[in-house]
Amino acid sequence: MTVSVLESEVAREPSYCFQASVDNVGPQIVGGKGVRIDVEKDGKIYQNILDGITGAAVGALGWKDEEIFEVVNKAVRESTYSYAPLISNKASEELAKFYIDNSPKGVFSAALWLTSGSESNENALRIIRQYYLERGLPEKVKLISRENSYHGFTLGALGISSNPRVEPYKPYIMDQESVALKMPCAYTYRFKKDSETEEGYAQRLLDILEKKILDNGPEKVAAVIVETLPGSSLGTTPPPKGYLKGIRHLCNKYDIIFYLDEVMCGTGRSNPNGKLNCWENFLDASEGPDIQTVGKTLGSGYVTIAGVLIGPKIKEAFVNGSNSINGGNTYSSHEFSCAVALGVQKKIARENLTANIFEMGNLLAAKLRQRLVPEDNIVGDVRGVGGFQSVEFVKNKETKEVFDPKLNIITRFKNICFENGLIIMGMPSNPDGSCGDRAIFAPSFIVTEADINEMVDIFVRSVNDFSKTLRQEGAW
Amino acid sequence: MTVSVLESEVAREPSYCFQASVDNVGPQIVGGKGVRIDVEKDGKIYQNILDGITGAAVGALGWKDEEIFEVVNKAVRESTYSYAPLISNKASEELAKFYIDNSPKGVFSAALWLTSGSESNENALRIIRQYYLERGLPEKVKLISRENSYHGFTLGALGISSNPRVEPYKPYIMDQESVALKMPCAYTYRFKKDSETEEGYAQRLLDILEKKILDNGPEKVAAVIVETLPGSSLGTTPPPKGYLKGIRHLCNKYDIIFYLDEVMCGTGRSNPNGKLNCWENFLDASEGPDIQTVGKTLGSGYVTIAGVLIGPKIKEAFVNGSNSINGGNTYSSHEFSCAVALGVQKKIARENLTANIFEMGNLLAAKLRQRLVPEDNIVGDVRGVGGFQSVEFVKNKETKEVFDPKLNIITRFKNICFENGLIIMGMPSNPDGSCGDRAIFAPSFIVTEADINEMVDIFVRSVNDFSKTLRQEGAW
Repeated sequence: MTVSVLESEVAREPSYCFQASVDNVGPQIVGGKGVRIDVEKDGKIYQNILDGITGAAVGALGWKDEEIFEVVNKAVRESTYSYAPLISNKASEELAKFYIDNSPKGVFSAALWLTSGSESNENALRIIRQYYLERGLPEKVKLISRENSYHGFTLGALGISSNPRVEPYKPYIMDQESVALKMPCAYTYRFKKDSETEEGYAQRLLDILEKKILDNGPEKVAAVIVETLPGSSLGTTPPPKGYLKGIRHLCNKYDIIFYLDEVMCGTGRSNPNGKLNCWENFLDASEGPDIQTVGKTLGSGYVTIAGVLIGPKIKEAFVNGSNSINGGNTYSSHEFSCAVALGVQKKIARENLTANIFEMGNLLAAKLRQRLVPEDNIVGDVRGVGGFQSVEFVKNKETKEVFDPKLNIITRFKNICFENGLIIMGMPSNPDGSCGDRAIFAPSFIVTEADINEMVDIFVRSVNDFSKTLRQEGAW
Repeated sequence: MTVSVLESEVAREPSYCFQASVDNVGPQIVGGKGVRIDVEKDGKIYQNILDGITGAAVGALGWKDEEIFEVVNKAVRESTYSYAPLISNKASEELAKFYIDNSPKGVFSAALWLTSGSESNENALRIIRQYYLERGLPEKVKLISRENSYHGFTLGALGISSNPRVEPYKPYIMDQESVALKMPCAYTYRFKKDSETEEGYAQRLLDILEKKILDNGPEKVAAVIVETLPGSSLGTTPPPKGYLKGIRHLCNKYDIIFYLDEVMCGTGRSNPNGKLNCWENFLDASEGPDIQTVGKTLGSGYVTIAGVLIGPKIKEAFVNGSNSINGGNTYSSHEFSCAVALGVQKKIARENLTANIFEMGNLLAAKLRQRLVPEDNIVGDVRGVGGFQSVEFVKNKETKEVFDPKLNIITRFKNICFENGLIIMGMPSNPDGSCGDRAIFAPSFIVTEADINEMVDIFVRSVNDFSKTLRQEGAW
């Protein structure tokens, strides 16, 4: 399918929304169907743009799914809003049961549905705090998350994150010296030494974590928090072999909560078994997390839903303690949103779309790797798992030197892709050189091999054109 | 309409949702229509319960509004999810324009739509931080909010709150000594001295605020944050005469952001002009807030939406600075949610429901006051504005002594109301005696005088019965 560009009849108007470039409306979505969207930009309408990122790794079902229209229509007629901590509803229970039943047996025993990934991470932190209070361990407060990480845009979630977006908000976030500690990220492409095996690299990282736990006192450490597959912050770099198992082991050894953030990588985007959780690539059921956040594909963009999955260890501590959570979120367990999300997940399960995106995503990566890595261009690495893949750009393939952030490499590249008919996510290189510019793919679960081939063709062409331009400019 | 109780055919099942009493499902909503809901509780179905609180002051339109079914049906067919900071949409712009146009002229110039009140307050704090950075004033970080306040359940929102729910999370929230400062609440019934006029009480509070600003250095104070009409934390105690004007004046004098939280009291629940903002009861257009959070009735429970309204002072500082917000929330400006909220607000405006709830709410309060305050019972105060009203219970009407929290006064009272066919919100007395148990009303905007009379009758009967019981028990 070719992209067509129409002159828009809508005159540019001032923006009333406080986001992105504050004083102008920027591109607007004006339609979508399946794996393609229509975008109005600079007075033109771009039709049938191939959607390689589904917003921000949100869309699983494809846009304007007729079955979901019916699900929504039924859900709104059958739902009545209530404040769930006082008067709950059946749809939220059904969605929780569905998630638990579609995860390895015994790993999860409850869920709390919220409205965003950020809010889910906020709630996970509160739950962890209450968990230790229930157990009479008020001193266990320290959180160990990672450098180059992102867990959301609210202040608690920013506190456990580490990236340039956190810096301005330092006065309002958790103490970074004594409470929200950071360990190195796991980033094989860039930080595994040539002399190390993958397992050796993992062990080095685990030794650092264990030292941090011991230096801070295990009796003061509450949780270790990692994204199973980091999203925007590092670009889908898979954990090195043995890394997550090692964290699970250390958490067991020192009585620490093992907390996985799967808001972006989870709920079917990167699961090898046609199920929901990304960690199933790396861990057995007996090694699953104690608590996990999810979101994005859960509602596939049709509704704003996310959540926290809770393992039996945490649930039992509550039940054996106060058995009570004081307070709640106005929109937790929202009946309508839960009913729609359940409809989305049931269709994904019925049509084996999780298996499809795992295969198609890996195919996308294989083709990009084959056509880009050995060639003379700016691609340093292609990596990811299933439907979540990244391409990292470097100035020098040998030294892995990143481009100067001032060159706006990824913004320019994204625009080239867009003009060529493909939308991807672009994240800029870190100012300290710890990560290069990266293009991120998270397509709809319904992509076909033909869609993948088209994505690959456009992306490869865009890389080749852009590499040539950069060479001409002397930037590369 | 009478309440009927049916034996439920649904057996009690274990709960998979992590909220309230963790190990059991608790009451569940099983239907609703207009101002009434059906609730399944302890194996029985209670039909046609009169809804005095609409979840948590959320419902404005009444439940299962047929027009909104159509709005939802149209919105899902016409919307495509996108990550709005990169590719926005027209519905979010329309909703922002609607809100701005329906507020006093010149007060707001932009809006950011989010998914919950907590998330909105989190974003407001981030916006304020960036505002001062744009102006080159990085030292302006201190936030002054109030004792006995509630701004949400995420960690940043908890940091500016002050109530028993905050305590457990102290390790994870903002520094309460140097960053998130607290001033006394404004609570006329309990803290205005008999020797003071209302204006005199307001001035005393303003003097305390001004001293706090001066003691901390105006060049370090970022914002003063108050709920126009406090919700759950104090029970709709209106600001004393001159109080909000005085805060506005101090904010102008010392170059401080005036930040109103209207998540619970705003968006038409308590507006004297048939419009949206609660502060219009107390302030002229020239005295409006610089930033304001809203939620609840905005989507009326049909969708999970809330937001931040931004005044021209803040917007201009951004436009004249970087003109850019780095990062965003996955579900900000959600097209479907914005389209539904716009449909809800248009119906409310067309049918003058804001004017109706203002009149009906005040009627409710007048009738409760007349029938309860002079009588021999546990009612100390009836207060509020328009559709947001509270009844405070006291052990002694003269001394205003509160009941011992161990007596669970409000929980017991709520259950009596429920059995009598009325749902209200109940908040327990503060352990330090600074506020009594309170019953809170926030009915649907569509309530009729007959509904109000029925609410009053049930409530008065419940108070009288409960007062008698407490007397028999020797608790009163």
